[in-house]
Amino acid sequence: MKTILIKQAQLDGVTVDVLIEGNTIKMIADSMGKEADVIIDATNKALLPGFANSHTHSAMTLFRGLGEDIPLMEWLHQYIWPYESQLTQEMVYWGAKLACVEMIHSGITCFNDLYWHLPGTLLAAEEMGIRSVQAYSWIDFFQKERAESHKIELSKVYETSNMWSEISRFSVGPHAIYSVSAESLQWMAAFAREHRLMFHIHLAESQTEYNDSIKNFGVTPTRYLYDLKILGPNVVAAHGIWLSPEDIQILGDHSVNVVHNPNSNLKLASGYKFKYNELKESGVRVCLGTDGCASSNNLDMLETMKRAAFLQKAWRRDPAVMPLNELMSIASFHGYQAMGFHAGKVEVGWLADLILIDLRQPVFVPNHNFYANLIYAANGSVVDTVICNGQILMEHKKIEGEEYIMEMAQLMAEKLTQPKPVPET
Amino acid sequence: MKTILIKQAQLDGVTVDVLIEGNTIKMIADSMGKEADVIIDATNKALLPGFANSHTHSAMTLFRGLGEDIPLMEWLHQYIWPYESQLTQEMVYWGAKLACVEMIHSGITCFNDLYWHLPGTLLAAEEMGIRSVQAYSWIDFFQKERAESHKIELSKVYETSNMWSEISRFSVGPHAIYSVSAESLQWMAAFAREHRLMFHIHLAESQTEYNDSIKNFGVTPTRYLYDLKILGPNVVAAHGIWLSPEDIQILGDHSVNVVHNPNSNLKLASGYKFKYNELKESGVRVCLGTDGCASSNNLDMLETMKRAAFLQKAWRRDPAVMPLNELMSIASFHGYQAMGFHAGKVEVGWLADLILIDLRQPVFVPNHNFYANLIYAANGSVVDTVICNGQILMEHKKIEGEEYIMEMAQLMAEKLTQPKPVPET
Repeated sequence: MKTILIKQAQLDGVTVDVLIEGNTIKMIADSMGKEADVIIDATNKALLPGFANSHTHSAMTLFRGLGEDIPLMEWLHQYIWPYESQLTQEMVYWGAKLACVEMIHSGITCFNDLYWHLPGTLLAAEEMGIRSVQAYSWIDFFQKERAESHKIELSKVYETSNMWSEISRFSVGPHAIYSVSAESLQWMAAFAREHRLMFHIHLAESQTEYNDSIKNFGVTPTRYLYDLKILGPNVVAAHGIWLSPEDIQILGDHSVNVVHNPNSNLKLASGYKFKYNELKESGVRVCLGTDGCASSNNLDMLETMKRAAFLQKAWRRDPAVMPLNELMSIASFHGYQAMGFHAGKVEVGWLADLILIDLRQPVFVPNHNFYANLIYAANGSVVDTVICNGQILMEHKKIEGEEYIMEMAQLMAEKLTQPKPVPET
Repeated sequence: MKTILIKQAQLDGVTVDVLIEGNTIKMIADSMGKEADVIIDATNKALLPGFANSHTHSAMTLFRGLGEDIPLMEWLHQYIWPYESQLTQEMVYWGAKLACVEMIHSGITCFNDLYWHLPGTLLAAEEMGIRSVQAYSWIDFFQKERAESHKIELSKVYETSNMWSEISRFSVGPHAIYSVSAESLQWMAAFAREHRLMFHIHLAESQTEYNDSIKNFGVTPTRYLYDLKILGPNVVAAHGIWLSPEDIQILGDHSVNVVHNPNSNLKLASGYKFKYNELKESGVRVCLGTDGCASSNNLDMLETMKRAAFLQKAWRRDPAVMPLNELMSIASFHGYQAMGFHAGKVEVGWLADLILIDLRQPVFVPNHNFYANLIYAANGSVVDTVICNGQILMEHKKIEGEEYIMEMAQLMAEKLTQPKPVPET
């Protein structure tokens, strides 16, 4: 098995050597005289688990900068949906490749995707060597015919995709309760249970969703999923901004994973009072995501961590909330747990999804508090080396072939033509 | 006079050559065959005015990471004030040098400082070649003796500092209305008027300040300064979070400059509902600042611009507020205007305070909207070249001597010793 030896890295304030064998962390010691296929000099570098981006739509990189500073409904109807209807699998593939380049640069080693043309994203992720869970995206607008064709297509993609590879997993991705019928939600929940898959859904993102749910279903969005008997530890709910105290209790009781996406929530003005303390105390596993580049513009987890923390301190008027030591877990270990991978810690026996941070930068001076410097001062640009599943994906801030990927993604984006607006209904 | 020719830069979507002569932009054309002392190849780079960081305490870089995630009063009494009492001019000099390195890296060409040991910061800024206004910091806690010694010291620093150099200016810096007596405020206002200086003060930062002002003075903080006849276009008021409608009108009527510092306001939980629209409409010039590294952890204006914009959209529930085209002005031209320098635009006859952005990065792909990519997706790490006052301060992301400055700042920070808490009074 291939071995990598990381020499003299800073790990929680201690200098260590780390031996990787195959895809696993084999040994951690002050110093070791071992031979290895590859030796990485980690002097002046800090070693961390890679970040787990727990909610994104990676190919939406192609829409970066389209439709800025405009209200949500105009954004959806005049930009996002009409542009999405023009996407092909090839475009999604290159958009996802670009997303992988960007994610690897900022230290993301695992992402949880939900998008159209799944095989395109899957191929991109596998080629780039980055770990991911890929949700089959489903919108039926309560139309039986669309639901039926989704069932066939989902099963086909599930059968033909490279399921349960070392680094990729399939999941089901109903868009939201206002765009997918109850019957479809239950069908997907059953499919997920049968095949032991994640159920990845947007939940309680906007006040409109919350109010409409009460109007149309008589209950909150969370309670609606509970009544349908869908909630459980395999559910990953993105956003979770609009929650009643009962909703929080329900999510906790069912060990649901809730992914906070602060940039997206701020930019789209969906709401920003994410109930971190209450969710954590109820038993929810809180994770962190960038969301797609149409609503957050980049895929930088360090920026996202700082944003989440500062926002939480501000709206609760308490600087002690969401402290540094919880942020690392939220942004790595929790996401890996939600996605079902044994990674997110630098410990023997865990998957070798690791990053090295270049410490010779102004934001790391002085070194009173490494995690404060990393999370509150730095951004994704400080990541020097990225290892995923025991493979080196980036060294000295360079990823093989990245210039070509940027060129191809640019070409794909140029295929998008100014669409006719989809009328608001 | 020394000349610099910037070749083939992207300026608002057009490719141009720019000739700098001395400290001024001399000529802008599609292409020019001129000779020059220095030629900069700006292929694949965007040209912008440098950013103006309109409120900071640069030497507080030395406190980066000290006292994280703790409430404001504990932060002040157990960390900031006790540590500040240990500072020497040498420590401030190296802290400010580190700040300059960090600011130049992220494209800041001008900053508005307010801190102790002014000559240390001034020397640092001049050596680094970065433009600045330096406020003499004044806290007297309403004690006549302290005020008198400040008067002598301020006058001495004013006389002996290198005033009105090409790149540096002196200003008066009363800390705040709760830490400086009315008589001192008026003395400084008169001094500033006489010598045509900026009056730089923290104003309406926290709700405590607002409520205490009403309790102690019978009026809001803004109205208090108005009653003292201090307000005018030379006043730079940092924060301005807690303002009544009348306050906003007063600030507008007197053409006051208000500096928004979103990161600091969020982290310290001071308040986040900055009234951008109202202030702008009243006639206030809104500027942007990073504040010091103890409360914002870094000095990155691009991060600050994104944070300001997203926060504004969120709390007002309107994604159209504080749009991209206003953000560039707020972060550059407005700050320069407030500080009284003829810069912040890439136009002939203006000061050559310019930056080049490296476009060959994932966040600039695709190029649907350059300013969206720059402000909403990028961060300070995309700045490649910095020119200030016609001098090249950074090229290809390298600043001469930066490693040594980081080492020295680290050494200075290590001199800080865990202080005895200053009792809360």
